Amino acid sequence: MVPARRGDLFNPACPTRQLLDRIGGKWVAMIVKVLAENDPQELGFAELERRVPGVSHKMLSQTLRALTADGLVTRRVEPSVPPRVHYRLTALGLSLDEPLAALRDWAERHMPAINDAAGRASG
Amino acid sequence: MVPARRGDLFNPACPTRQLLDRIGGKWVAMIVKVLAENDPQELGFAELERRVPGVSHKMLSQTLRALTADGLVTRRVEPSVPPRVHYRLTALGLSLDEPLAALRDWAERHMPAINDAAGRASG
Repeated sequence: MVPARRGDLFNPACPTRQLLDRIGGKWVAMIVKVLAENDPQELGFAELERRVPGVSHKMLSQTLRALTADGLVTRRVEPSVPPRVHYRLTALGLSLDEPLAALRDWAERHMPAINDAAGRASG
Repeated sequence: MVPARRGDLFNPACPTRQLLDRIGGKWVAMIVKVLAENDPQELGFAELERRVPGVSHKMLSQTLRALTADGLVTRRVEPSVPPRVHYRLTALGLSLDEPLAALRDWAERHMPAINDAAGRASG
């Protein structure tokens, strides 16, 4: 049997829904943007940490590990003392920047209106 | 002082990042799609539950409450016995369907490649 070559978000057995949860959050949105802006240059862990204000060491490390496992980011360990780790988007990871940019832009554009709505709802 | 009329995802104090976490998940992606497809017709809670396979009663109820608080969904209570609740996207909610569609499409299109990468990473 040929495996499905396209996921189906509305099929509860399809891993597309878990994928959407992995890529839809704020940290992925920011990390992918920073890496895409620097592409094809790599970024070191400390540099990424600096460019994603508010991210914790642990959260950045976890998110990069998940992105690497999904084949969206490559990780290169420089054999220095201490070893330095560099990150870059894969072609697949780079292709994710476009839909994420649309969502980031929507969120930034409509945040004031949504904040107003939330204020009315709780006020 | 005039308040900022655009959010900034990279400012840790800006609520845009929380907003992104609220709209980026699988349930919002599915609920907004189903409501957008039926717009301008409303959908009842049970109908939404049926059209979003795998969602629990509690999760659907929580997600609809959050979408309503953000001004993305309107809720109309029909004074029947028992009362029936109907949902519709607001104009703002409808505008969210476009960036979400891009992300849903990306996830469905690339799920097989990502599944392969994840298989290699853990294999």
